[in-house]
Amino acid sequence: MYNYLIVGAGIAGCVLAERLANFGNHILIVEKRYHVGGNCYDEYNQDGILIHRYGPHIFRTNSQEIWKYLSHFTDWYHYQHKVLAYVDGLKVPFPVNLDTLNILLNQQFSGAEMKNYLDKVRYEANVDVEQIKNGRDMAISLVGQELYDKLFKYYTRKQWNLWPEELAAEVTGRIPVRLNRDSRYFNDKYQGLPKHGYTKMFNRMLEHPNIHILLKTDYKQIIESISFDRMIYTGPIDYFFNYVHGRLPYRSLKFEYETLPVEYYQEVGTVNYPNDYDFTRITEYKHLTGQKHLWSTIAREYPATEGEPYYPVPTEVNQELYSKYESEAQKLKSVYFLGRLAEYRYYSMDQVISQVFRFLSNIT
Amino acid sequence: MYNYLIVGAGIAGCVLAERLANFGNHILIVEKRYHVGGNCYDEYNQDGILIHRYGPHIFRTNSQEIWKYLSHFTDWYHYQHKVLAYVDGLKVPFPVNLDTLNILLNQQFSGAEMKNYLDKVRYEANVDVEQIKNGRDMAISLVGQELYDKLFKYYTRKQWNLWPEELAAEVTGRIPVRLNRDSRYFNDKYQGLPKHGYTKMFNRMLEHPNIHILLKTDYKQIIESISFDRMIYTGPIDYFFNYVHGRLPYRSLKFEYETLPVEYYQEVGTVNYPNDYDFTRITEYKHLTGQKHLWSTIAREYPATEGEPYYPVPTEVNQELYSKYESEAQKLKSVYFLGRLAEYRYYSMDQVISQVFRFLSNIT
Repeated sequence: MYNYLIVGAGIAGCVLAERLANFGNHILIVEKRYHVGGNCYDEYNQDGILIHRYGPHIFRTNSQEIWKYLSHFTDWYHYQHKVLAYVDGLKVPFPVNLDTLNILLNQQFSGAEMKNYLDKVRYEANVDVEQIKNGRDMAISLVGQELYDKLFKYYTRKQWNLWPEELAAEVTGRIPVRLNRDSRYFNDKYQGLPKHGYTKMFNRMLEHPNIHILLKTDYKQIIESISFDRMIYTGPIDYFFNYVHGRLPYRSLKFEYETLPVEYYQEVGTVNYPNDYDFTRITEYKHLTGQKHLWSTIAREYPATEGEPYYPVPTEVNQELYSKYESEAQKLKSVYFLGRLAEYRYYSMDQVISQVFRFLSNIT
Repeated sequence: MYNYLIVGAGIAGCVLAERLANFGNHILIVEKRYHVGGNCYDEYNQDGILIHRYGPHIFRTNSQEIWKYLSHFTDWYHYQHKVLAYVDGLKVPFPVNLDTLNILLNQQFSGAEMKNYLDKVRYEANVDVEQIKNGRDMAISLVGQELYDKLFKYYTRKQWNLWPEELAAEVTGRIPVRLNRDSRYFNDKYQGLPKHGYTKMFNRMLEHPNIHILLKTDYKQIIESISFDRMIYTGPIDYFFNYVHGRLPYRSLKFEYETLPVEYYQEVGTVNYPNDYDFTRITEYKHLTGQKHLWSTIAREYPATEGEPYYPVPTEVNQELYSKYESEAQKLKSVYFLGRLAEYRYYSMDQVISQVFRFLSNIT
């Protein structure tokens, strides 16, 4: 009766449903949670302030195609994320730029002098840049030992409950170092938040009458009674195979919310706390959303081992475990695996959409 | 596989699902719209202000049982609705009380003098109170010709596109007349709004893991592929029977929203416009919800013939048509009809819950 059964209503599931329904297919999305949008879900809290229930999500992409696609479903608040790191009692720009260095080292370097400094500390770090094998070496090869100790080492430890040397290089490798005073967190050409929230954007994507949405339901509970031609699975791949090879680990997060009777609590959207306290960062949502309100809600973010799956843990052991599931998945006809949980990869939002577009161009 | 298929996720459907799931049943709710809560649904608009998408809903009941039941799922904002009517360029309390009369007649009556006035105009109206047969006679027998003309006649005409004499007596009969200065719209012992909105309250009612929710789906599209023991239908009864006897008419509403850069626009939650303009009333939601915000959203309410079904139209012809469907419904085993649309009755919210409780005590 349905052309596609889509398991999961996160970004991958919503984009798939929207595209496939527009090609004339009948779609049933089955979602375990009581809402669509996956971890991008936002909602007004009890104080009337728009928050992201699963932590801050800033959309960014270099792809005009992806930006234009989403723009069919939302206007944008042209927000460019800024982050400060609280180090040695000071708030400094993060990622590292000229100001970060000058404040932390109490210098007045020019860009050229910063380059000299970095050349020197990279040389002293003595890392073979052709063969970087973990997150520690990657970070030290970028900023040297001193900034690594102040900004990266303990933040990574809090975030992953692992030392940077126990993690893949990509964990610290995605963060730029800038010889100028650019303090934006991301470099992407297109950055912003859906003007009226992610949830409203996803709701618009799912408006097509050919899309039915079954919430609060584990797909295994209903799969026998639903008839469909093809299935696209965007949930955890290990759950699909009943954990036959064991569980793939995820890093999770807990949020401690507080609404304060002030217009703003901090200078920017997010302040990182690499060394102090047990939380990794504080996000103040009004900076991200542009909402005007008399009060402001902040969220302190505590990494956790248990809870909703957020980040695949990038270690070699985990990648090998995933490969076992991947081989099983490739044997199946008429079931496709797509997205962060099904591919056990820490995709950014635009990467997920890019994957979906590639998938669609192959099947149609 | 499901013990109950519930069609419709309005008040009736949500209360049924919650109670039946708590008795151990597995429930599938199928809802045509993309949200639960029926016409009680509220949401934050684009300006971050909480509004009721289908017009103002103020919960009220004299039943401690019903109030306590809902209190399991929400705290309350103890709002008591107040309405002013804009008449002759003045805003006067509505329903009619001592102030209404004194302002409109430019008098300084006491309660006893008001009673004398009412006795006199009721006598002059010459209506047989034992045999009141329509809305006009009912209103005139309560307030006399002059107040009827100023407050009831044209409001009713706007609301129903019928003159009061074309409608059942109950249309105007539910409104009290007070010899004192009490200006509350309702008399009920318990009055209020769910502190964080109706939608959050309904979401909490549906949290039980035995409840699955299928949205954006006409039950006729899936009923053949779902297995269930019993069905409870809360949708329009004429649609269930494919309109074989013809369509039951409903009065609908259109809303014109405006967000203004002021803290408050009007003195009270609702101002009625019985005689001026084409809208019947303006509601300012911040009064109802207690929300604090720099701006305020108002909704002008225009009655309409086409659109979402709101009010069953209480005429004799329509009641006869409904009776035909009712007879068909009574012949069916394992299908139950409950709620405003399925029973074609203008129930208040607490009356729906009361009906559901009665139904549940009969089947369990």
